[in-house]
Amino acid sequence: AQTVRLAVLPGDGIGPEVVAEGLKVLDVVAADLGLAVERTEYDLGARRWHATGETLPDSALEEIRGHDAILLGAVGDPGVPSGVLERGLLLRLRFELDQYVNLRPSRLLPGVASPLAEPGDIDLVVVREGTEGPYTGNGGALRVGTPHEVATEVSVNTAFGVERVVRDAFARAQARPRRKLTLLHKHNVLAYAGHLWRRTVEAVGAEHPDVAVDYAHVDAAMIYLVTDPARFDVVVTDNLFGDIVTDLAAAVTGGIGLAASGNVDPTRRSPSMFEPVHGSAPDIAGTGRADPTATVLSVAMLLEHLGHPDAAERVVRAVGDDLAARAGAGPRTTSETGDAIAAALA
Amino acid sequence: AQTVRLAVLPGDGIGPEVVAEGLKVLDVVAADLGLAVERTEYDLGARRWHATGETLPDSALEEIRGHDAILLGAVGDPGVPSGVLERGLLLRLRFELDQYVNLRPSRLLPGVASPLAEPGDIDLVVVREGTEGPYTGNGGALRVGTPHEVATEVSVNTAFGVERVVRDAFARAQARPRRKLTLLHKHNVLAYAGHLWRRTVEAVGAEHPDVAVDYAHVDAAMIYLVTDPARFDVVVTDNLFGDIVTDLAAAVTGGIGLAASGNVDPTRRSPSMFEPVHGSAPDIAGTGRADPTATVLSVAMLLEHLGHPDAAERVVRAVGDDLAARAGAGPRTTSETGDAIAAALA
Ligand SMILES: CC(C)[C@H](C(=O)O)[C@@H](O)C(=O)O
Ligand SMILES: CC(C)[C@H](C(=O)O)[C@@H](O)C(=O)O
Repeated sequence: AQTVRLAVLPGDGIGPEVVAEGLKVLDVVAADLGLAVERTEYDLGARRWHATGETLPDSALEEIRGHDAILLGAVGDPGVPSGVLERGLLLRLRFELDQYVNLRPSRLLPGVASPLAEPGDIDLVVVREGTEGPYTGNGGALRVGTPHEVATEVSVNTAFGVERVVRDAFARAQARPRRKLTLLHKHNVLAYAGHLWRRTVEAVGAEHPDVAVDYAHVDAAMIYLVTDPARFDVVVTDNLFGDIVTDLAAAVTGGIGLAASGNVDPTRRSPSMFEPVHGSAPDIAGTGRADPTATVLSVAMLLEHLGHPDAAERVVRAVGDDLAARAGAGPRTTSETGDAIAAALA
Repeated sequence: AQTVRLAVLPGDGIGPEVVAEGLKVLDVVAADLGLAVERTEYDLGARRWHATGETLPDSALEEIRGHDAILLGAVGDPGVPSGVLERGLLLRLRFELDQYVNLRPSRLLPGVASPLAEPGDIDLVVVREGTEGPYTGNGGALRVGTPHEVATEVSVNTAFGVERVVRDAFARAQARPRRKLTLLHKHNVLAYAGHLWRRTVEAVGAEHPDVAVDYAHVDAAMIYLVTDPARFDVVVTDNLFGDIVTDLAAAVTGGIGLAASGNVDPTRRSPSMFEPVHGSAPDIAGTGRADPTATVLSVAMLLEHLGHPDAAERVVRAVGDDLAARAGAGPRTTSETGDAIAAALA
């Protein structure tokens, strides 16, 4: 039997609540597959920071590095200054573990009400670069607090970093039925970075004659995502544009409560990390109102990454059935939803 | 009688077609107001570039500088390399004329079908910074075309530049019925720039106790704009976030065919420039299918800027009536729409 060493970071707010349901579903599927899941839980996030001032101690990072995968709930609470946990924990994990493919699928599942009047058949995946761009923290500030302050943020893009994520996106496009890849950027203004991305997509595209390639400026993509989201199949883009566009893609496919993600190191040198796109939602923590569906779908991505695509697809189908069953019914608690999906899979 | 020296830059594609209708409406209103509009037309854009290699000759810039305002159609065609006209003409005008307030209102007008199932009562204005941020062209590239290429883009934010646009946004919020201002940024990741923006909004906000201030991360704003756009009143943000979010705001209020904008120098040292947000749409140029509404609404913004808010409001109302009349009717040509609005105002 395969043994999977899973690092679990429940985090703050609704994080532990949704992670519990994700693990419930994982347990059912693992039993079925004969997978032994060895979990280690890490207490990281706002609670830890308030108690000790630590975000991600080096020792915890090194331990986490020894796992096969990571499941993260959500971190943060309003008492932690902006950026502390983002830079010190979440982005540190993505960068240190070289999770350069931030994978964010958006499908309009059965039974889900889109806020769009005519959503069409949405099934896209954004391959967001995860280790470069404006997220590198390469900025600075001068004369802070004076009328002469200058604050800069530097987007760093390397041929190495762009090529590897573009290759990953093409491989995914090649494996999907529609075989379409859209580069999303703003090369008419961000010319240096834009030209690197364009040239890379052209060069890698030449090796994939089967994949139809197009381009959209990030601003125009906003319009397409509300008027014709079905036009997108695989979208490849930088770290910041990917952050923005995936929230919109989530919004038009039923909301952030359903949006799953994987921070993937395709080389498998480091563990990949799966997490719902939503935050820790302190306002509803403890009320049982959190929807664990995004975490369950993140577990499906984890299963796929571990080499179990059929099991992953079964989870997605169970979620789809559950969403259809839920439509029009009264509100459910977090654990009722987890129970329903787990029962359907048992 | 007031004389207005107007520089007209019809541009390319549908630009001249929509500008003709905008001027038609302006003529009617000007006659009514006793305004003498002296127009000078400038042949700038893709056609000029193809013919002469020029984007914005210094002499043309200096002439334009001598005007009271600018009306721009749209520039560009697929034959011009990306960035040439953007950097050399459009952004050069915005930067050289120090148009630091890029004003982009979005209202859901009567008769307009939003792509949202439940749009609510949308009436927001984005105050987009126009002369800084990632738009400064302060990037570079090293070892271009090699596997060791590094391409950077630098977002430059100054206390001077941020404060003046934040002040403008607060003044606008103060003058609107809801008195609400939302800062849109991503300060949890772009910490240097983000903190400058935050501190500035706090400081200027302290001088405006009547204005309710809140904050949204740019990614979260994507969700709000499709699920609850009515929550926004005045939104202040940087050049790039403003570019992105205004296309989404346009999309949810009937599309880019209705989106007007003003590139404003509130000090009035330089002429302000009014333009539809849409592009030159070469695919429909010459077919009579271009909707001139965004240009007519840009003319309304021009009238307001010139000190004629009542006339501006009359134009907006005429557009609203026309949109309501158009709803459900067959397609109209560009000039039929201009004629209808002009007739209603005559
Ligand atoms: C919390 C924040 C740092 C993060 C990001 O910007 O990547 C989040 O928005 C996300 O999309 O996972
Ligand atoms: C054409 C381009 C340079 C421009 C911008 O990015 O500002 C456009 O998208 C706009 O919004 O006016």
